[in-house]
Amino acid sequence: MALSKKPVTGMRDIMPDEMQVRDYVIGLITETYRSFGFSHIETPCMENIANLSNKQGGENEKLIFKVLKRGEKLKIAEASTEEEVVDFGMRYDLTVPLSRYYSNNSGQLPAPFKALQMGNVWRADRPQKGRYRQFMQCDIDILGDATNLAEIELITATTTLLGKLGFENFKICINDRRILKAMAAYSGFEEKDYDDIFIILDKMDKIGRDGVAAELKECGYADESIDKYLQMFAELENESNGIAYIGEKLKGVLDDSVAAGLSQIVDTVEATKACKFDLVFDPTLVRGMSYYTGTIFEIKMDELGCSVGGGGRYDEMIGKFTGQKTPACGFSIGFERIILILMEKNFKIPNDSEKIAYLIDKSVSDEDRVKVFVEAKKAREEGMQVLVSNMNKNKKFQKEQLEKEGYTSFKEFYWDTWNK
Amino acid sequence: MALSKKPVTGMRDIMPDEMQVRDYVIGLITETYRSFGFSHIETPCMENIANLSNKQGGENEKLIFKVLKRGEKLKIAEASTEEEVVDFGMRYDLTVPLSRYYSNNSGQLPAPFKALQMGNVWRADRPQKGRYRQFMQCDIDILGDATNLAEIELITATTTLLGKLGFENFKICINDRRILKAMAAYSGFEEKDYDDIFIILDKMDKIGRDGVAAELKECGYADESIDKYLQMFAELENESNGIAYIGEKLKGVLDDSVAAGLSQIVDTVEATKACKFDLVFDPTLVRGMSYYTGTIFEIKMDELGCSVGGGGRYDEMIGKFTGQKTPACGFSIGFERIILILMEKNFKIPNDSEKIAYLIDKSVSDEDRVKVFVEAKKAREEGMQVLVSNMNKNKKFQKEQLEKEGYTSFKEFYWDTWNK
Repeated sequence: MALSKKPVTGMRDIMPDEMQVRDYVIGLITETYRSFGFSHIETPCMENIANLSNKQGGENEKLIFKVLKRGEKLKIAEASTEEEVVDFGMRYDLTVPLSRYYSNNSGQLPAPFKALQMGNVWRADRPQKGRYRQFMQCDIDILGDATNLAEIELITATTTLLGKLGFENFKICINDRRILKAMAAYSGFEEKDYDDIFIILDKMDKIGRDGVAAELKECGYADESIDKYLQMFAELENESNGIAYIGEKLKGVLDDSVAAGLSQIVDTVEATKACKFDLVFDPTLVRGMSYYTGTIFEIKMDELGCSVGGGGRYDEMIGKFTGQKTPACGFSIGFERIILILMEKNFKIPNDSEKIAYLIDKSVSDEDRVKVFVEAKKAREEGMQVLVSNMNKNKKFQKEQLEKEGYTSFKEFYWDTWNK
Repeated sequence: MALSKKPVTGMRDIMPDEMQVRDYVIGLITETYRSFGFSHIETPCMENIANLSNKQGGENEKLIFKVLKRGEKLKIAEASTEEEVVDFGMRYDLTVPLSRYYSNNSGQLPAPFKALQMGNVWRADRPQKGRYRQFMQCDIDILGDATNLAEIELITATTTLLGKLGFENFKICINDRRILKAMAAYSGFEEKDYDDIFIILDKMDKIGRDGVAAELKECGYADESIDKYLQMFAELENESNGIAYIGEKLKGVLDDSVAAGLSQIVDTVEATKACKFDLVFDPTLVRGMSYYTGTIFEIKMDELGCSVGGGGRYDEMIGKFTGQKTPACGFSIGFERIILILMEKNFKIPNDSEKIAYLIDKSVSDEDRVKVFVEAKKAREEGMQVLVSNMNKNKKFQKEQLEKEGYTSFKEFYWDTWNK
């Protein structure tokens, strides 16, 4: 029986031109983070289903591709629930696997452990344009470092990478969950309402201060709190040093070390910039995940109106997974989005080797044919990409096709190339 | 709930030192085959279960990790068979995906299409030492080229790769399924018995000519045929040019072009060798897969007594999958075995950058701390791997650990580094 031609619903084949860009980016990521002392690691694509279903994965747990038990363990006819027939699941992110990896191998790993992961994850999302059910994630994490050296290295390494990829004029927004909370506390909101308030605050760049005020009012929060809260954001807009303002304003509510630490991160990153970007304190930056405990950050490309990565400090999560408290800070880079941007920009691989095609006519004798391969060998050793091909009857069409594939020069071999 | 620490049964976590070797080998594979005009491509890790269960996959079809249907499509309680609850499966090789990819995308692909695939495959084999249920395969195929240019380029590219990895004195054994068949026909065996005879012939290197003769006798084949058959292998052992001998001996039974084409492959590969290896005509080479239609080859490393790759021409298979006849020739490299050999050899990455650790003492002021990162930036730009770390109380232990991770030099920063 013939195969069905299409990939499974929501997944895709990757064409050679995109694959070359992916390989280049993967190489650059590996090289860049390695120069910062990160180790590349890998975990299996499947995890025990219990590891994936322990409520730390939020909504993603509803999207797991589950793997059927095999052999005698599988009793379909008797089963009435999924749990009975499933033992593994495809990972939906790289955080659960990292936590498991760390707890399984920490004895053999450096401390602190600086990990780079690049790997596919699977989510049974409703298929939609530009969103796939298998996609590559790229996570960089530092486990076991409670100091802001982790934040500094993560942001510096990641912006260095973006610079090498030719991105500039992007923005790194930075904030701290403790500042978010202290601002809410200072304004008189109750702790139980924080998460709801932050969801509204997160819309500031879209609906503005008035919009945020209106939504907070609608939820029934006290006018006094709302005014006090938004007054701060108004004042912050005119502050050249927002972090200092916050440190001063929230004295007593916010630990002094928080603003000082954040300033230090900003100053150090500014002093070691490898490309043109802005590092901006953004008190409205929320980052959805409630597991963040300290610094949070996000890469924004204004021209694209989207984020291409983000992360933060999550000192409690690894412990929840592993039972052993471990400070942690990480960055997740939007690998697929970066590839999409590069493909749309018609990105050219820097210093890509010359592509030359050797076309062998039928008139070439067996003996002479060997000479073509010897010549190809030399050119390859000099760094060229050489395609050796039989010459087609329609040589013109053949060359046009090869030009489309990036071949810039041609060499034709006939009987009389050697026999004149 | 805490995670279970271990990877799923039969799969494994990859440690940083191995991962670095894997990245290096993957980079070298990509670069080497690209220099021969191969395109790297990728397909999803899952395929429609019908594509994986069409009998072309042989025994591997019994080892498929199957993926559960999702949402309303899944009716566990009513189901009595696997088929009812499964829609996708994890790929068990890269050949089915390549066939599907080619038939899905051939309009956009070069002709002939030279494909490089590196990707994980999954097989629910009984777990055993050194054999994993998720492992990387590396396949190189040329689709749409019926000439032996395909064989020449595949063998040349692959031996070039092995040379770059530091392997030498390995052996490429080569044969042709048509020679295998012609030798059997010439000896008077019946076509229906060929596959059984080849299974016995395949043991020649272990049980010798007498052993093969004994087993053939046991199966009840005619003495005359057995004698005639083994007489040829005996004569071949003393022939300096086995292919010429075969061409002469089998005249009338074997098409003249077969021996001539094989000679041409051998001569061309010999003339363009990039490292030290032997290309040997081996009339006892069988290669298990019955889908091969012409040339077959295998890489043997005598010191290891194992094969690290092999392949051949399979002009009929793609057509069976896609409905459109396509000549094809391919090589599968034993990626995991190569990595294992390199790890055992304690392989060092050539020209790996220097690893230096900067240790910052607590006495360093915030202002001076910035200077450390500026210095690290410069060293990284010069190509070094720089780890910036807080100095531990037990500095001696810290440095010992870092030395184990490959850090060869250290720089320590104190208050008086800048303030004397």
